[in-house]
Amino acid sequence: MVELLDVLAARTDRMRTSEIRDLLKMISKDVISFAGGLPDPKTFPTSEDLKDIFEFINSVRDKAFQYGVTEGLPELKEELSKYLSRIAIKADPEEIIITSGSQQGVDMLGRIFINQRDIVVVEIPTYLAAIQAFNMYKPNYLGIPMDEDGMIIEQLEYELHHLLIKDKKPKFLYTIPTCQNPTGISMSLERRKRLLELASEYDFFIVEDDPYGHIVFDANELKRLKAMDKEGRVIYVSTFSKVFSPGLRIGFVVADMEVTKYLVLSKQALDLCSPNLTQFITYYALKNGLIDRNIPKIRKIYKSKRDAMLNAMEEYMPNGVKWTKPVGGMFIFTWLPEYINTKMLLYKVLNEYKVAYVPGRSFHVDGSGWNTMRLSYSYPPEDMIIEGIRRLSEAVTWAIKKFQKYNIKQID
Amino acid sequence: MVELLDVLAARTDRMRTSEIRDLLKMISKDVISFAGGLPDPKTFPTSEDLKDIFEFINSVRDKAFQYGVTEGLPELKEELSKYLSRIAIKADPEEIIITSGSQQGVDMLGRIFINQRDIVVVEIPTYLAAIQAFNMYKPNYLGIPMDEDGMIIEQLEYELHHLLIKDKKPKFLYTIPTCQNPTGISMSLERRKRLLELASEYDFFIVEDDPYGHIVFDANELKRLKAMDKEGRVIYVSTFSKVFSPGLRIGFVVADMEVTKYLVLSKQALDLCSPNLTQFITYYALKNGLIDRNIPKIRKIYKSKRDAMLNAMEEYMPNGVKWTKPVGGMFIFTWLPEYINTKMLLYKVLNEYKVAYVPGRSFHVDGSGWNTMRLSYSYPPEDMIIEGIRRLSEAVTWAIKKFQKYNIKQID
Repeated sequence: MVELLDVLAARTDRMRTSEIRDLLKMISKDVISFAGGLPDPKTFPTSEDLKDIFEFINSVRDKAFQYGVTEGLPELKEELSKYLSRIAIKADPEEIIITSGSQQGVDMLGRIFINQRDIVVVEIPTYLAAIQAFNMYKPNYLGIPMDEDGMIIEQLEYELHHLLIKDKKPKFLYTIPTCQNPTGISMSLERRKRLLELASEYDFFIVEDDPYGHIVFDANELKRLKAMDKEGRVIYVSTFSKVFSPGLRIGFVVADMEVTKYLVLSKQALDLCSPNLTQFITYYALKNGLIDRNIPKIRKIYKSKRDAMLNAMEEYMPNGVKWTKPVGGMFIFTWLPEYINTKMLLYKVLNEYKVAYVPGRSFHVDGSGWNTMRLSYSYPPEDMIIEGIRRLSEAVTWAIKKFQKYNIKQID
Repeated sequence: MVELLDVLAARTDRMRTSEIRDLLKMISKDVISFAGGLPDPKTFPTSEDLKDIFEFINSVRDKAFQYGVTEGLPELKEELSKYLSRIAIKADPEEIIITSGSQQGVDMLGRIFINQRDIVVVEIPTYLAAIQAFNMYKPNYLGIPMDEDGMIIEQLEYELHHLLIKDKKPKFLYTIPTCQNPTGISMSLERRKRLLELASEYDFFIVEDDPYGHIVFDANELKRLKAMDKEGRVIYVSTFSKVFSPGLRIGFVVADMEVTKYLVLSKQALDLCSPNLTQFITYYALKNGLIDRNIPKIRKIYKSKRDAMLNAMEEYMPNGVKWTKPVGGMFIFTWLPEYINTKMLLYKVLNEYKVAYVPGRSFHVDGSGWNTMRLSYSYPPEDMIIEGIRRLSEAVTWAIKKFQKYNIKQID
């Protein structure tokens, strides 16, 4: 056998098996999992929908099972252009590229923009898989903390100013402004406006990742950055995973045609094209209102689950634990007392308390977040959510009692 | 607008819009195209098959429309392991990763293996999209010419020996040993054996790309390199695009578990997972013999088309033109007299003779091949193949007459 380690590319240093991923693979049937961000299957097309969809696919068989064009199915891009206009995003079909989930869009943006040591601005915390995609291209991260209104824009401005003094600027800023993964936090309208002003003033791109924009429960949908962008600075990334089906892997990027051109060249080398079959299914669902009709249903399902989780947290969590109150999406982010390491705790919680979460550390590009966890309420049924939070609260109560003596502030 | 050219990553220099691609986009309805490598839709699942497939999908709805695991659908990998054993490839499901077409496998292998200036051995000519994928990682190519028995192994040995003197060796050798794209040439069994010996002696990996292995018409299927590999040196890449449907984008890589592990880490950052829906469809087709029953049908269709093209070439092509006689696959490769530039010729041929081909230059990593073209017989109906070759032959006859005076040998 060839000695593998001798021949791997240097960039594989950036590929790490996540211990957490490995640990979470072990989840047994009796564990209630808040770990994955899996949609509730009730949000998928119904059997009735499928009948219509499959009849349609049969009618376009020769095209649906054939190679497609790299840019994406033209019919789908046409419908998408209309769908986007309803959220005030003006996009010609030529400004759209269909991707394999939004993840592929995020990776391709890293590929075309990031040179080693380029500055990429992200929220602290931010979406883990975006960090993993960008890591491959070796950027330097500038992490900006968040409060309940999203990324703290004053801090961003301060950092941009200090970069400017050193004659530097970010390549782009990556944000999930609405119902962010992992925190569930949404950026206020005022901050969105200010962010666009700063992008103009300091001259950088914004990558707006928007998987949850349609899943806002209590308020009107929040205005997309892309809808307010007058300078072609916002690159909009989204997906049908949360509003139709993640099993189709249909995402898309909307950008200036010059950017789209390079994304198409990337995709050609990466996988030639996305499946025509899943693109035709998404086209049919858009065209015939399946997705529009699905969205209110999805909001209702997740709102009810969010409420179940928040109420259970309120009831069971001990003092010293804080969490976000998201207006939509799938996630609640939780801060335990600082002396608790949620990664170390996970093994015990999985095995003894039979409940799973994602330790929050890996969402933090600054190495902080050891005491945090991401909880997803999207998949388990409501009674399981309540029972799971009860168990988790018990585990946290145990941990506080056990580790309180390591509280540095106390020792001080 | 941000000045895009100022902010693009250095690696985008390697992304070129192919003029040929742009030219071939212009193909009008009245052009007979031998350019694309599109499968004949008759090789796709029938309406009858689709009924069964869709019924099955409905029965696994909650899983088919959900996120999958990065490695690929376990049920599919199990079936694939059995399918591979029938071509003498022993692969545990853990040694298999499902990819978005074989293209993604090729890209990911580049990603995990190639450091800048690493040596990658390829055939001259070789598959264009593999070059495009590898280019992103900036290797130095060592191109080995082919004859009718495939890569000239004596030349490979000579080059390996000279590399060794300089204390160098290739990172891997990329080959399509059976019915190669673009030439249709298959490597002889003797050369396959010798190639494996050289890989062992000079210590490098072999990437065996095998999209056409099942589409051999006249002989028994040729023994895969992977089936003869005793040292875990062969990484096997294949796809269901040519034996079932390219519109599903289901490919796979079989490799040592250590290699597969890094491929999984790559895929996680690239697109999280392939669509569960298309994986379930492929699983069903494998499990229920749809693909096994399809293969003889496909062979018959393409054999008849190949014969139609070869016969028409024989009948119409002028003297001084040479072409390959493939035992299977989809392509015939053609050499015109050396003073004819097939790229320059294409514009005229498209517009006046209404027939399309791919100029062969870009398949050659050594910059040669200006006088070559790739002809695909897989898509057009037989009468169109004959008519297309008649037209093309007319164009070539015109070009010979026109450009003969530039024949350097003649001028000498």
